[in-house]
Amino acid sequence: MKQKLSIVKIGGNVIEDEDQLAKFLSSFSKMEGLKILVHGGGKLATQLAEKLGIQSQLVGGRRITDEESLKVITMVYGGLTNKNIVAQLQANNCNAIGLSGADGNTIQAHKRPVKTIDYGYAGDVDGINATTINALLISGLVPVFCAITHNGKGQLLNTNADTIASEMAIGMSGLYETTLYYCFEKKGVLMDVAEENSVVKHINSQSYQELLDQKIIADGMLPKLENCFHALNKNVYKVCIGDISMLQPTTALYTTITL
Amino acid sequence: MKQKLSIVKIGGNVIEDEDQLAKFLSSFSKMEGLKILVHGGGKLATQLAEKLGIQSQLVGGRRITDEESLKVITMVYGGLTNKNIVAQLQANNCNAIGLSGADGNTIQAHKRPVKTIDYGYAGDVDGINATTINALLISGLVPVFCAITHNGKGQLLNTNADTIASEMAIGMSGLYETTLYYCFEKKGVLMDVAEENSVVKHINSQSYQELLDQKIIADGMLPKLENCFHALNKNVYKVCIGDISMLQPTTALYTTITL
Repeated sequence: MKQKLSIVKIGGNVIEDEDQLAKFLSSFSKMEGLKILVHGGGKLATQLAEKLGIQSQLVGGRRITDEESLKVITMVYGGLTNKNIVAQLQANNCNAIGLSGADGNTIQAHKRPVKTIDYGYAGDVDGINATTINALLISGLVPVFCAITHNGKGQLLNTNADTIASEMAIGMSGLYETTLYYCFEKKGVLMDVAEENSVVKHINSQSYQELLDQKIIADGMLPKLENCFHALNKNVYKVCIGDISMLQPTTALYTTITL
Repeated sequence: MKQKLSIVKIGGNVIEDEDQLAKFLSSFSKMEGLKILVHGGGKLATQLAEKLGIQSQLVGGRRITDEESLKVITMVYGGLTNKNIVAQLQANNCNAIGLSGADGNTIQAHKRPVKTIDYGYAGDVDGINATTINALLISGLVPVFCAITHNGKGQLLNTNADTIASEMAIGMSGLYETTLYYCFEKKGVLMDVAEENSVVKHINSQSYQELLDQKIIADGMLPKLENCFHALNKNVYKVCIGDISMLQPTTALYTTITL
């Protein structure tokens, strides 16, 4: 039987709130077994860009990463956010090591090809380096990834953190029974968006189709759940979606997704 | 007989010059055997601080690291500089992994005590974690350290890169025959500062005293050489001082220092 590995993704909403982040990092530190953290960015990068007079271009809700924006992202996500998370985890007796995908060549990507839109220095993930990541895990380290990858030719690339988390889970599933946790602002997939406790506790392939037909899963949840089933179809054991209380599973309400 | 380990420190003058940096990273990548890179900061942090309207306070030539300056340093040294160096090393087939002292708890430090001057978030190194650094080395990784440490209680600290390099060399000398390379803008210790090729090829404890008596070593070289002999007295095998051509030892002119 394979050993268990937990991969937890947190988004900007947790990172931006000092108290939420401290609570989350405390819970994460207490999680037993091997684990990996993937963190998104949030508004800090946009705020720094504004202060520096760099315009953030958005097309269809997606950020265009030009050269100056990439510098800001590398400073904020790869520097300020990543190193402060690592220092706080260390204070919680969690032996964290902060990484981008360039570090140890852990996440290889390529610049998104230009079709109708040029996303600039945005990276699409080719794969992860399970051997190196595993070497860190068996050394007792807890990898903490920011959402930056590289193309192996010296170019850093801005990459979606949800995608990094799912590709990480997929890539590690050959070695471990991998559970992927998506922490976000809600308690899980909701039957009624107006009712925060109306959490669908379990979703599988069949009920997913029913929820889609009933249009209960729509908007922002659609790509999230597509990502989840993509991971499950590639041998990830289980995906959980919920807020930061999810990491204390004895009491928490959250959504578990399996095939 | 112990295996060899090279620890190379580069300063701001190399980092600020794109061509120099590319040349250096190419030479560093070709160095045989186990190796570690330590990089300083340079003017990029000061430039960013200026753009953000943060005053850089200097007392006696040393920067006072207040909370805002620490953020800038963490963004620039820990993010922009460190990740770009790692990405470029990866492009040179060198499996680099970028770290601060918080990552893997690799460099423990404490906030410099306030005597006459409060240096703010400046760190004095307590020691390095040779076991974790060695685990990275034997996994085939090349650690690349920025000059940021932590106190284990969640606080990042701005730390002198020369000191990190020498403490790293001292800490690793129990496991390896360690050579410390200080790359700077000159070809080595010079007999005549006006003559760039007047390099003192070898210095030992005895000739060091003579050079001191003759006042040939003065000003900026004094603390550098004190650092070197401190390292040598703590079992570092050899220290070399020179410019970036030093890493091609068959042709280069540089200063070698032993006890």
